[in-house]
Amino acid sequence: MVSKEKSTGKPAPAARAPRTPERAHPVTLREVAEAAGVSTATVSLVINQKKNARIADETRQRVKDAIRQLGYRPNALAKTLVSGTSKFIGLVADGVATTPFAGQIIHGAQDEAWKHGYALLIANTEGNRDLEKDAIAMMLEYKVRGILYSTWFHRPTAIPETLREADFVLVNCFSPEPGAARAVVPDEEQGGQSATEILLRGGHRRIAFINATIPAPAKDGRLQGYQDALEAAGIPFDPELVLEAYPDQEGGYGATAELLKRNVTAVYCYNDRMAMGLYDGLRENGLSVPDDIAVVGFDNQEVIAAHLRPPLSTVSLPHYELGAAGVRMLLGLDEASNDAAVKIACPAVERASVTAHSPA
Amino acid sequence: MVSKEKSTGKPAPAARAPRTPERAHPVTLREVAEAAGVSTATVSLVINQKKNARIADETRQRVKDAIRQLGYRPNALAKTLVSGTSKFIGLVADGVATTPFAGQIIHGAQDEAWKHGYALLIANTEGNRDLEKDAIAMMLEYKVRGILYSTWFHRPTAIPETLREADFVLVNCFSPEPGAARAVVPDEEQGGQSATEILLRGGHRRIAFINATIPAPAKDGRLQGYQDALEAAGIPFDPELVLEAYPDQEGGYGATAELLKRNVTAVYCYNDRMAMGLYDGLRENGLSVPDDIAVVGFDNQEVIAAHLRPPLSTVSLPHYELGAAGVRMLLGLDEASNDAAVKIACPAVERASVTAHSPA
Repeated sequence: MVSKEKSTGKPAPAARAPRTPERAHPVTLREVAEAAGVSTATVSLVINQKKNARIADETRQRVKDAIRQLGYRPNALAKTLVSGTSKFIGLVADGVATTPFAGQIIHGAQDEAWKHGYALLIANTEGNRDLEKDAIAMMLEYKVRGILYSTWFHRPTAIPETLREADFVLVNCFSPEPGAARAVVPDEEQGGQSATEILLRGGHRRIAFINATIPAPAKDGRLQGYQDALEAAGIPFDPELVLEAYPDQEGGYGATAELLKRNVTAVYCYNDRMAMGLYDGLRENGLSVPDDIAVVGFDNQEVIAAHLRPPLSTVSLPHYELGAAGVRMLLGLDEASNDAAVKIACPAVERASVTAHSPA
Repeated sequence: MVSKEKSTGKPAPAARAPRTPERAHPVTLREVAEAAGVSTATVSLVINQKKNARIADETRQRVKDAIRQLGYRPNALAKTLVSGTSKFIGLVADGVATTPFAGQIIHGAQDEAWKHGYALLIANTEGNRDLEKDAIAMMLEYKVRGILYSTWFHRPTAIPETLREADFVLVNCFSPEPGAARAVVPDEEQGGQSATEILLRGGHRRIAFINATIPAPAKDGRLQGYQDALEAAGIPFDPELVLEAYPDQEGGYGATAELLKRNVTAVYCYNDRMAMGLYDGLRENGLSVPDDIAVVGFDNQEVIAAHLRPPLSTVSLPHYELGAAGVRMLLGLDEASNDAAVKIACPAVERASVTAHSPA
């Protein structure tokens, strides 16, 4: 127990003796029964809300009062054992640690699970297959309601054999086998279109796209969205305006020279990290954002996009919503088919890196 | 079940019919008993490794073979119910979503828990007291072995009343009440000292420190470390060389003008975000890093520090190790007292933002 007196500077000598905080004694079923003046069997019936148990309302209330007053905690595991499934949803993630994004999938999944009375049991595998197998086995042994299988970047994935023993949803990934699994992914095409539209609304007509060198659904989808937006604006697609670079700051910086040969007034970068590097490259060439060149990124990686000079217009990856939608699909609250992944919109976030441009 | 044939373009018409992937039928205890030619009671005794059960080795092996061949999954909850505590460790976190750091605490805690046969049950509260209370109650009902209570930045914390019902360790936070709880925190003093030493090793003598405006253990500790390093190098502490700014990019950028009045050759920033803003400020003043001014940050926030131009020397916040140490302390594997928080070292990470400097 902790003293109720406030600490006043140095602890008194007695406080220096090694002590362990006393762990509060857990209240037992028997203590509740004694406090309520009933048998333990009666307490058990009240806790488990047995429909057919004939217990007087007054007795039931006395038991409930004793539970509240004593702070008795029913054993959730015992209830689970009776029902056959637990109030857990499992989340297998391949990169909680290596990306600031994965946290948002956890956050969204947990908030949604919580709303429906489920707790989230998380396993971080960092892509290790043995760890993944163990994690899924553990979740199955704990009789989870189902498993969300998530990846830190949007990609096709094989379905681990043991995952099929559970009810599952793929989050931020999908199976290349048709009809194999429910999945929820970001809408890369719409995101690419929204990014390009920010620049079109700024009056730009010659807009470059610095795409990633690495094959991924994001690479294809974001390019398709760029083309769709140009087409809708009546601007012919010019493949010369599409560059490719490694998707980080160094890649964006390194693309500057090629970009400047294209005589564009605006550029949409595959991600915020590339835009950050491009800012440096443009600055070194004496060009200013947005007056000389307008820039749009993708991801809305907060620590970068909101704090560049000037702050970067971009498109949000909907990781929170992916996690939440995955839970809803697992619980059957959102419709989902095995035939096509559900796509979640990537909303535009407009900041100062784009201003109105008057064509010459 | 999923077809073993590879997809060849469009699905055949039959594949278009709505289907749900068949959930594999969970193997029952009875099926194991039938396969092994024994009673279900015998299977149960083998699974629960009852010491006194007299079962022939040959029979025991037959049951184990049947379990493996059929893929039977024992119910971990049933075992838990017998033992009174579960193989769960709870982790209450106040900011999984809002910081890229929190993920590393989860990662470290999970890896360490896993090593000892525990699974991590995570609750993200975003600082909401009601949610926190519910999360702790849920963990208590699931009879967790103990709870790690973590905060996303290093700070003093009150101990929630219900947390005291569990065995617990504070991670990245501590109780201001003496002797109240075990805790593990980053060693801010040593980190500040290591950051300053990077600059001292580069030959710098006039080193500014841009501290945060916000009161926090990091603010006091990092300043103390700076003073200790100077003292050890025989350099008198000059309070004029300590500036304060809001700890983000805009703060670092805004501090440039004041910094340039101090006639220093090097600067240590409270965090990497400030260093990122300062880079922009120095550049606008025609100064180059590291030739005109050497810069060191703090945090090793990967997406920033490793990718600035030039890459930033900094000091790592040991979040992974905080999570892992928290688990070891909870399980009694690492010694810890309630009287003083265990401090984890913040290792220096040297990059190109500091080079040897010859004093004029």
